[in-house]
Amino acid sequence: MTIRPIALDAMGGDHAPSATVDGACRAVRDGIAVVLVGDETVLRAHIPKGVEIDIIHASEAIEMDEAPSAAVRSKKDASVRVAARAVAEDRASALVSFGNTGALMAASLMELGRIDGVERPAVIATLPRRDGGQVVILDLGANVDCKPSHLAQFGVMGSVFAQDVLGLERPRVGILSNGEEEGKGNEQVRAALPVLENMPIHFIGPIEPADALQGGCEVVVCDGFVGNVMLKSVEASIAIAGKVLREEILRRPGAKIGAKLLAGAFRRYRNRTSAGAVGGAFLLGVKGTVLVGHGRADAKAVHAAIKRAHGAVQQDLTEHIGSAISTALAAVRPSDT
Amino acid sequence: MTIRPIALDAMGGDHAPSATVDGACRAVRDGIAVVLVGDETVLRAHIPKGVEIDIIHASEAIEMDEAPSAAVRSKKDASVRVAARAVAEDRASALVSFGNTGALMAASLMELGRIDGVERPAVIATLPRRDGGQVVILDLGANVDCKPSHLAQFGVMGSVFAQDVLGLERPRVGILSNGEEEGKGNEQVRAALPVLENMPIHFIGPIEPADALQGGCEVVVCDGFVGNVMLKSVEASIAIAGKVLREEILRRPGAKIGAKLLAGAFRRYRNRTSAGAVGGAFLLGVKGTVLVGHGRADAKAVHAAIKRAHGAVQQDLTEHIGSAISTALAAVRPSDT
Repeated sequence: MTIRPIALDAMGGDHAPSATVDGACRAVRDGIAVVLVGDETVLRAHIPKGVEIDIIHASEAIEMDEAPSAAVRSKKDASVRVAARAVAEDRASALVSFGNTGALMAASLMELGRIDGVERPAVIATLPRRDGGQVVILDLGANVDCKPSHLAQFGVMGSVFAQDVLGLERPRVGILSNGEEEGKGNEQVRAALPVLENMPIHFIGPIEPADALQGGCEVVVCDGFVGNVMLKSVEASIAIAGKVLREEILRRPGAKIGAKLLAGAFRRYRNRTSAGAVGGAFLLGVKGTVLVGHGRADAKAVHAAIKRAHGAVQQDLTEHIGSAISTALAAVRPSDT
Repeated sequence: MTIRPIALDAMGGDHAPSATVDGACRAVRDGIAVVLVGDETVLRAHIPKGVEIDIIHASEAIEMDEAPSAAVRSKKDASVRVAARAVAEDRASALVSFGNTGALMAASLMELGRIDGVERPAVIATLPRRDGGQVVILDLGANVDCKPSHLAQFGVMGSVFAQDVLGLERPRVGILSNGEEEGKGNEQVRAALPVLENMPIHFIGPIEPADALQGGCEVVVCDGFVGNVMLKSVEASIAIAGKVLREEILRRPGAKIGAKLLAGAFRRYRNRTSAGAVGGAFLLGVKGTVLVGHGRADAKAVHAAIKRAHGAVQQDLTEHIGSAISTALAAVRPSDT
């Protein structure tokens, strides 16, 4: 497979286009081919002299306050949609965007479509684990109400992701629950258990949030509503914990010297506990590598996201998901094959 | 209303009966009447000389690994059930237990019953807020699948709790969601919104986890599955954040001196971020004040829980919930009154 450039929706994100163009230039300096998608005149003005970077012109952009699906449907020339089309037409190998997640999802479904057998694409990211590792969690908001078959497919996709992107050999997959004993879980979890047990993955059953964060598994499966609550709760708690501890340290005698001495410790803490360590969330289950970064991304985060998308392309993530899903479907319905 | 002693299930909890009896003795020294419920011979041996404390004998106890409802049903003389009966018979004013939460719930339903109009009792506790305050959250696990009417009643009960126990005048009530914009939320949240809007409370609509933890509301309503995931995620993240930051500080030069200087800061951090600041979780919606403490509680935590239960009794929490629920029902169905 020839690796095409990464298509960057250069108009999306709070600091676009300066942060997106700057991040793209950093990736180009690493030897990763990037194509910027957006208003050519605007983008051209941001590219420093001497940097070789292609532009695909897109005359429209989706704003953060627009209703995503409707906006993407009506704006055929929106940068996110043009970028998705470039992937669909094999002019780019991956799509990276820092704009509206709903718009990215809609554009991906319209232009790329779902992988055969995938009922619902899912948003996947990682959370920092106590042991310094990462735990993969999906879905994070794309699907707020899920059937057992959706959750089972999340398990398969998450398992492939942990192998390809995190390099884990036999990732343990758990389903997020309020307890690990028999009879715990809500209706959705109890209905999904037997279906997940039939998947060709290393499924370990229900897992509680604390166990997942302490290293009890590598992949957590849940519906997008619960996943979003867990992700946001962890992110907010880590931020609050850091601030409270800093306040308490600054109340001590010798606070100013202490704060100086501890600046490095706090920086390392933020790096270790940053949920964005993988450089954004992936949208899995569509026919193409799609990465959604945080709207607040700066040039460094854009750079990291492009590298991560490039890595996933090199690993053949999308192809692997496709074959894992068809294997899983064959395992569940042997009579159909 | 005469305040009766607090009935303490002295056999429940990892450190029972030494921690429970010790904690009860501390409360007695504060002038709070406590009656211990459990094996009289065992308990008597733990009471220090000179402390006046009554015992109600119970010949059985529920173990942590028993199926809660079945165990409570078959063990009529289990300490938790005898303690609940003492409240039902007005020999005690509140029930405090550090044993199995499911068993406490079953015993409360069997012996005390639900408040008129309450469809589902709920477990309520508080989480630490960025601003140093507390945010009330319910349900935390008693009801994993909830109807809109259940969530609406949680809103009413949570609002009364915030007033009586936290002393807040007009607590803002939000429903936990994955976004605050129109169209966000899962089916359950969207169905509950109009019902909550009709409740005689200060309802502010959907709220995200981060906003709730940063002071956006005083009461968070959710089903017990999602609530449990949020509670456990916050608790685990705060614990992990503290450990990671301590590790990073200990890597710095002068680490040993630094660690000594910072011991106080870490202690204050733990106190400020402890979810157990109110001394345990309450079971709301049953005819009696019921408090469930953490299984790992030591004597200090037992003491705090007894004080908290005593405070709720003095505030007439249960009576206030009863009248708020009947007012709410009248507001929703004016034709029935």
